[in-house]
Amino acid sequence: MSDKALHDVESVLAAASAARTPLRRASLEQRAGWLEAAADALDGAAEELIPLAHAETHLPLPRLTGELGRTTFQARLFAQGLRSGELAPVHVEPADPDWGMGPKPALRRALVPIGPVLVFAASNFPFAFSVFGGDTASALAAGCPVVVKAHPGHPELSRRTAAVVAAALPEGALGLIEGVEAGVTALRDARIKAVGFTGSTRGGRALFDIAASRPEPIPFYGELGSVNPVVVTPAAWAERGGDIATGWVGSLTLGSGQFCTNPGVVLVPDADAFLKSVELPEPGRMLTSGLEQGYADAVTAVSGRPEVAVAAEGPANEEGVRASVLRVRADVAAADPELLETEMFGPAGLLVEYASTEELTAVLRALPGQLTGTVQAATGDDPLAAEVVELLSDVVGRVVYNDWPTGVTVSGAQHHGGPYPASTAPTTTSVGLHAISRFQRPVTYQGTPESALPGEL
Amino acid sequence: MSDKALHDVESVLAAASAARTPLRRASLEQRAGWLEAAADALDGAAEELIPLAHAETHLPLPRLTGELGRTTFQARLFAQGLRSGELAPVHVEPADPDWGMGPKPALRRALVPIGPVLVFAASNFPFAFSVFGGDTASALAAGCPVVVKAHPGHPELSRRTAAVVAAALPEGALGLIEGVEAGVTALRDARIKAVGFTGSTRGGRALFDIAASRPEPIPFYGELGSVNPVVVTPAAWAERGGDIATGWVGSLTLGSGQFCTNPGVVLVPDADAFLKSVELPEPGRMLTSGLEQGYADAVTAVSGRPEVAVAAEGPANEEGVRASVLRVRADVAAADPELLETEMFGPAGLLVEYASTEELTAVLRALPGQLTGTVQAATGDDPLAAEVVELLSDVVGRVVYNDWPTGVTVSGAQHHGGPYPASTAPTTTSVGLHAISRFQRPVTYQGTPESALPGEL
Repeated sequence: MSDKALHDVESVLAAASAARTPLRRASLEQRAGWLEAAADALDGAAEELIPLAHAETHLPLPRLTGELGRTTFQARLFAQGLRSGELAPVHVEPADPDWGMGPKPALRRALVPIGPVLVFAASNFPFAFSVFGGDTASALAAGCPVVVKAHPGHPELSRRTAAVVAAALPEGALGLIEGVEAGVTALRDARIKAVGFTGSTRGGRALFDIAASRPEPIPFYGELGSVNPVVVTPAAWAERGGDIATGWVGSLTLGSGQFCTNPGVVLVPDADAFLKSVELPEPGRMLTSGLEQGYADAVTAVSGRPEVAVAAEGPANEEGVRASVLRVRADVAAADPELLETEMFGPAGLLVEYASTEELTAVLRALPGQLTGTVQAATGDDPLAAEVVELLSDVVGRVVYNDWPTGVTVSGAQHHGGPYPASTAPTTTSVGLHAISRFQRPVTYQGTPESALPGEL
Repeated sequence: MSDKALHDVESVLAAASAARTPLRRASLEQRAGWLEAAADALDGAAEELIPLAHAETHLPLPRLTGELGRTTFQARLFAQGLRSGELAPVHVEPADPDWGMGPKPALRRALVPIGPVLVFAASNFPFAFSVFGGDTASALAAGCPVVVKAHPGHPELSRRTAAVVAAALPEGALGLIEGVEAGVTALRDARIKAVGFTGSTRGGRALFDIAASRPEPIPFYGELGSVNPVVVTPAAWAERGGDIATGWVGSLTLGSGQFCTNPGVVLVPDADAFLKSVELPEPGRMLTSGLEQGYADAVTAVSGRPEVAVAAEGPANEEGVRASVLRVRADVAAADPELLETEMFGPAGLLVEYASTEELTAVLRALPGQLTGTVQAATGDDPLAAEVVELLSDVVGRVVYNDWPTGVTVSGAQHHGGPYPASTAPTTTSVGLHAISRFQRPVTYQGTPESALPGEL
């Protein structure tokens, strides 16, 4: 990738646009081969890229090694899904003169690429949700050229990843741009036909608004904020309350709490007893100083809401960041939507004590859209479990049962999304094989002979 | 349905919101039964409703009889798809300790209703795209309560249809509101979670903008404008030019041209010869005087573009409406995007003469998104056919081969959508079984025991 292609948004957009037709015409086998070649190239560059990621993000080396493995696994999974045909379903119906509403012509429904995709990379997964993350891999699998707007939290890693991946792909299939201005310019450009975004609600909403107000509005697939509630039922509490508290702290403070699935709200029947098992560790250094500030501001905002108290604080790290637990009664939380909407991105959680099932369900009904919702239920019979699962399923994208929401596996049955503000496109996922459907547009061919049909038909 | 429920938007929204949980908890079998009961009720009211539709829309009785049959067939098709499980797919993955990126928990992906849906009815299909049309049937099939904003072109029919259908459904499953103000109020209401719309680009875009600018933006599934280009290849012209011209006029003037799939642009190698076979009939009375005026304005606007000429006009009907054919050269059309974007909703078409394959493909590449694109190719070998199909597939939702785009069958393989402005949601369809997916939100259940899962899992 030349310096010009890296820095000149017009060159990147022109290259993506020029790649549109050849990528659309490429076979599923070719697309699969490109994804695998890019994954191989990235694995081959691990020794260079992992230390670079560590230097720019402060994330531990073992975590980054695992994340790179997850990233290339994901690309190969899409390749496999293309080869098996699972990701390019075709619906064929022969002509039917006796169809109930009148004679039906022969129809074949297939999926075509939506066109060049703009991907806004995230800071917290410098491999898995960045230059060659899930948005990019799924868009490429769909046959779309991708323009990545690099996250400023790891600029050099972004450049090197783009160079390694682009070299394994056809001309124009992957381009990189940097800076807010370049991102907005690309977002407004008529050649871009869809957008993938992972980040904050505020930033994502601003970009969503631009996408929606274009002369040609385009789908904006934004994965935004979430407080990921955890419900501890009375029966679970009686069975293993201490273990649940310890497990929650582990999930809450993992990676300094910098996960979109961080369980930031926990609903318990007895807050005092719960707090006895809470021991907060010193957090690792956060990704950026901007996130440190945002975290401090969010904790201040939440602890300043009516009847919210600081219940526990851990030791500060060198930058002065500490884990903390705030607490509030369920009846107060249910009546304060802003409280439940405020994501403290970092190692802080809100402990909500409920006095009755009614108070618990009132909080669940007051929640805005969530990526995940967790229920900690008794291992045996738990009368409340099914009701909590059902209530959560109306507001979250993933229900987690007797487990923790951090650690999102990539597979066919995975879903990572949810009602707004968890996502700007609640019927879609940004993780797992279904992510490809965001960038596939159906076309039905009526009465078209095989000689005039595209390859996979 | 009480008078209050009909006229008070707050009552209708409250009833829809109250129906949200019971509808979500209903089994697939129950939903199927409701759709069938509503279809039976509508068929049973045919003798009352068809004359009412005729009086309000001026559409002929046989057409309305066929359309009512199509409408109830469609509802029963969704019921059948629910019973077979086709419309409620579940993806089950057992836990896998050897999964390539680390141990995978047990995951089950299912679909839940998105929530109450607001449907803006269309004027041109008073049954099939109105109160109990495809948007309503697919949303009900998904388990969503529906609020229909009636089209003012057939108010009494809307009220009677709503009363007949609502009586066959659970409380709150279907409500009707009237008037622009009520529609906008409902669109802005937080209880509404998705929107279906069929109508003009201008009206649809205004509503889309409101949906996108809500505090919680919601999916807006708008099926808007389209000029539905037809390409006549030189080989097809040589083989059966006269028949093609006659067929085009038939499709263009069917139902006074009031179809969203009306083939408003035809590309031919020889316009003079084509026009020799063009005989324009007197159109039937249009649906509303507003459409008559809009049609006249659009024809005036297109014929006023540079180098566009009126090539043929048919006899005027009692209201002064006449079919007409305008003509222009392909090189002029390719350079005038506004010309190709102007839908003349009514019995008028634009005849575009191309002098070369390059001129033809330049027009196809300049087209905005389309619901359909048709190729008339030679029945034997036609070297241009595959290329035109491939080019059309990049810009349309349905490619029609040696047939006409009017007459959209409802089935599993159907697709009715396309890039903007054909649709505001280019990955979705408003016709056919896939229409249900617009109102289904995926939820993945992780590690959840059967005792706590919803019924279909």
